[in-house]
Amino acid sequence: MDAEQLREYAHKMVDFIADYYKNIENFPVLSQPGYLRELLPDSAPAKPESLQDVLDGKSVAGFLGEMLSAGINMVGFSWITSPAATELEMIVLDWLAKALKLPDEFLSTGQGGGVIQGTASEAVLVVLLAARDKVLRRVGKDALGKLVAYSSDQTHSALQKACKIGGIHPENCRVLKTDSSTEYALSPESLSEAISRDIASGLIPFFLCATVGTTSSTAVDPLSALGKISSSNGLWFHIDAAYAGSACICPEFCHYIDGVEEASSFNMNAHKWFLTNFDCSALWVKERNALIESLSTNPEFLKNKASQGNMVVDYKDWQIPLGRRFRSLKLWMVLRLYGLENLQAYIRNHIELAKKFEELVKLDPRFEVAAPRNFSLVCFRLLPTENNVECANRLNRELLDAVNSTGKLFISHTVLSNKYVLRFAVGAPLTEERHVFAAWKTLQEKASALLRKS
Amino acid sequence: MDAEQLREYAHKMVDFIADYYKNIENFPVLSQPGYLRELLPDSAPAKPESLQDVLDGKSVAGFLGEMLSAGINMVGFSWITSPAATELEMIVLDWLAKALKLPDEFLSTGQGGGVIQGTASEAVLVVLLAARDKVLRRVGKDALGKLVAYSSDQTHSALQKACKIGGIHPENCRVLKTDSSTEYALSPESLSEAISRDIASGLIPFFLCATVGTTSSTAVDPLSALGKISSSNGLWFHIDAAYAGSACICPEFCHYIDGVEEASSFNMNAHKWFLTNFDCSALWVKERNALIESLSTNPEFLKNKASQGNMVVDYKDWQIPLGRRFRSLKLWMVLRLYGLENLQAYIRNHIELAKKFEELVKLDPRFEVAAPRNFSLVCFRLLPTENNVECANRLNRELLDAVNSTGKLFISHTVLSNKYVLRFAVGAPLTEERHVFAAWKTLQEKASALLRKS
Repeated sequence: MDAEQLREYAHKMVDFIADYYKNIENFPVLSQPGYLRELLPDSAPAKPESLQDVLDGKSVAGFLGEMLSAGINMVGFSWITSPAATELEMIVLDWLAKALKLPDEFLSTGQGGGVIQGTASEAVLVVLLAARDKVLRRVGKDALGKLVAYSSDQTHSALQKACKIGGIHPENCRVLKTDSSTEYALSPESLSEAISRDIASGLIPFFLCATVGTTSSTAVDPLSALGKISSSNGLWFHIDAAYAGSACICPEFCHYIDGVEEASSFNMNAHKWFLTNFDCSALWVKERNALIESLSTNPEFLKNKASQGNMVVDYKDWQIPLGRRFRSLKLWMVLRLYGLENLQAYIRNHIELAKKFEELVKLDPRFEVAAPRNFSLVCFRLLPTENNVECANRLNRELLDAVNSTGKLFISHTVLSNKYVLRFAVGAPLTEERHVFAAWKTLQEKASALLRKS
Repeated sequence: MDAEQLREYAHKMVDFIADYYKNIENFPVLSQPGYLRELLPDSAPAKPESLQDVLDGKSVAGFLGEMLSAGINMVGFSWITSPAATELEMIVLDWLAKALKLPDEFLSTGQGGGVIQGTASEAVLVVLLAARDKVLRRVGKDALGKLVAYSSDQTHSALQKACKIGGIHPENCRVLKTDSSTEYALSPESLSEAISRDIASGLIPFFLCATVGTTSSTAVDPLSALGKISSSNGLWFHIDAAYAGSACICPEFCHYIDGVEEASSFNMNAHKWFLTNFDCSALWVKERNALIESLSTNPEFLKNKASQGNMVVDYKDWQIPLGRRFRSLKLWMVLRLYGLENLQAYIRNHIELAKKFEELVKLDPRFEVAAPRNFSLVCFRLLPTENNVECANRLNRELLDAVNSTGKLFISHTVLSNKYVLRFAVGAPLTEERHVFAAWKTLQEKASALLRKS
């Protein structure tokens, strides 16, 4: 969608909303449980639909009305206060789960289901709390100080924050070391050993967070092997696929989540690489009651027939806040207006652009690719002129500053095996091949200038 | 703003955004710390400004650019990734703090500051965690099981949820009883007694949540007296003014937060009664370092010169999630497009409409007003025909169902002193006197029909 198509669609949307506002008094206030599933298809369309098609149909006034209600006096806690938002969220997350080929246990039609969290940080927090309380119900709440959570040194800092919030003792957070020998993936042997040691010391292993596409280098943890260890030790097994999950709608990349059937929960951020506005982090769980037991409250003012009768899902009990926005609407628009085939093409194009950048790096003998490129991120660095790690690190830091201060592009960095490494990410909808070439040209020029000086 | 003005403004905004998109390659990527405060006034305007004035000026392209960046690839963690969003949030929350006459310690210019949370639930959670960790740093983390939090039975269920999340033992959550003798406000004597008892049992009081405008009946806790007890016992004193805080921009209602100078933190939801879209919950703290010590993480990939040099605020360390949206933009638009005088008139109008409804209830001898009306909520009920509590409760439940199933209005309920009570709330921007009269007429008709039947 270019600027002119955005303009056209957005003007149409403004009129739709203003007309709704004008006629707001003609709409009824209440709905019936399940009304929406009957009106919508079972899975996301492969081909794009037109905006008019999406806006047509009786149901849409309800959607936009509820979206608009955010501007008036948002009360999206439970089903009764926002039926369209609740039901559309269930439907759209079922669509997305099917597109990712997640096991059926993650669908809302069984004991599991999907929910939109704000971010992957909130996703890992709520499942960590569910896991914590599940084990504490069994062993007693005074055992909190004995619970142990496992991850690798490449796991996102969100897990560390979730542990702090949930009161898991910092010395019981096992951060298992990775290195280039496993391409920065968590080794099942090191997990097994750590669990055995902890059990021997009287501690209680309860949670594992594995990652598909780590933040630093997009490493992929071996899900099947890790999942088997988790289930034989009774751990909650969470998969953080915040960034790379989107790629798994393409059949050729789907193998990266082989082993997901072992997981207790799975998360991907639609706002990262799926053309959906921030914030929209999709979380699926196999056992929704574990979430609900940790996070539900039932004050008098929220009691209502639909909730008391267990006829509906109340997403307030699947998340930290009480109130919530109508976030499924944007995901629904993305799935319908683009269609899965275009979304797959979008992902493939970014990966091709990253490959192109990787080839450019490889052609310049002053640089090296510093970790395998799995998706659309390239980790690279300027090689040391002498064989001196510190000198190379300083050189790459200077290159980062020089490039970023041009104001033309922004690259970030990480540290892998003590090496300061630059990160080139393709992820913006407007990025084209010419931008990749221009970025590489800027990098080469700044590198030449720095090398001349040193 | 009516439907036609919304249409006009929204079309202008669409063109502004589409033009921005079209010219996106001409904008630089980076900014300097503090650049925004120099471009904006020190406090919110009293009179409304035009959209053109608000959109004019160099700085605005940056704002909308950053807002738009949400649609591309949102990276609003720290100052460096979103300078405009960070700086505007500091400025706008300082504006709002001044409009509420909060003590200077809550301003960002000292040791405190404001931050936008999603909801009041997140606000109370982050301050509870800050308070928890502050006391545990002193007494050792194994004392978690001894920490005691205080509130009244009218406090929002968000506190109970925050305690569950933070691992505060349920039996250490003191829910102090209120009744009609204090108009459902927390009694300082009962707080003092509870604290003394807990200290005598070897427990550690650490947190008090007081409310200005409770959810059930808009009761107001006596802040000054409660604050003095809190500070002499070393408690973190949080004020939840989620709903009623907005009214305190009017000089005649400002007395409801007398005593706020005793508080450690203060929260009001701009999305409840301040014409701002959900979600926008403003939280101020006096000691921002307490929040940061609880919630900061510092992974390699987020390190940057501005953060490492302590030159800037990184809001990621004031909240649960890592990523964040540009929420200050909507609050800034509201303050500038309406101006404080119109916002005051808006609040006063709702309170007048609620008074009108209260008068109607008082004129009908079959009904009673069930709790004092402080703001724009009226608690009322149909009186028992015989002197029978259960029968009156059933009657009022039936009235609620009958009224809500008309689809014309939606009223909610609560229970006060074992009485089932109906709640009539004025809070939507489009509510006029005719709607209040129509609602009362529907209520009277349904009541007559029910009373005829019984």
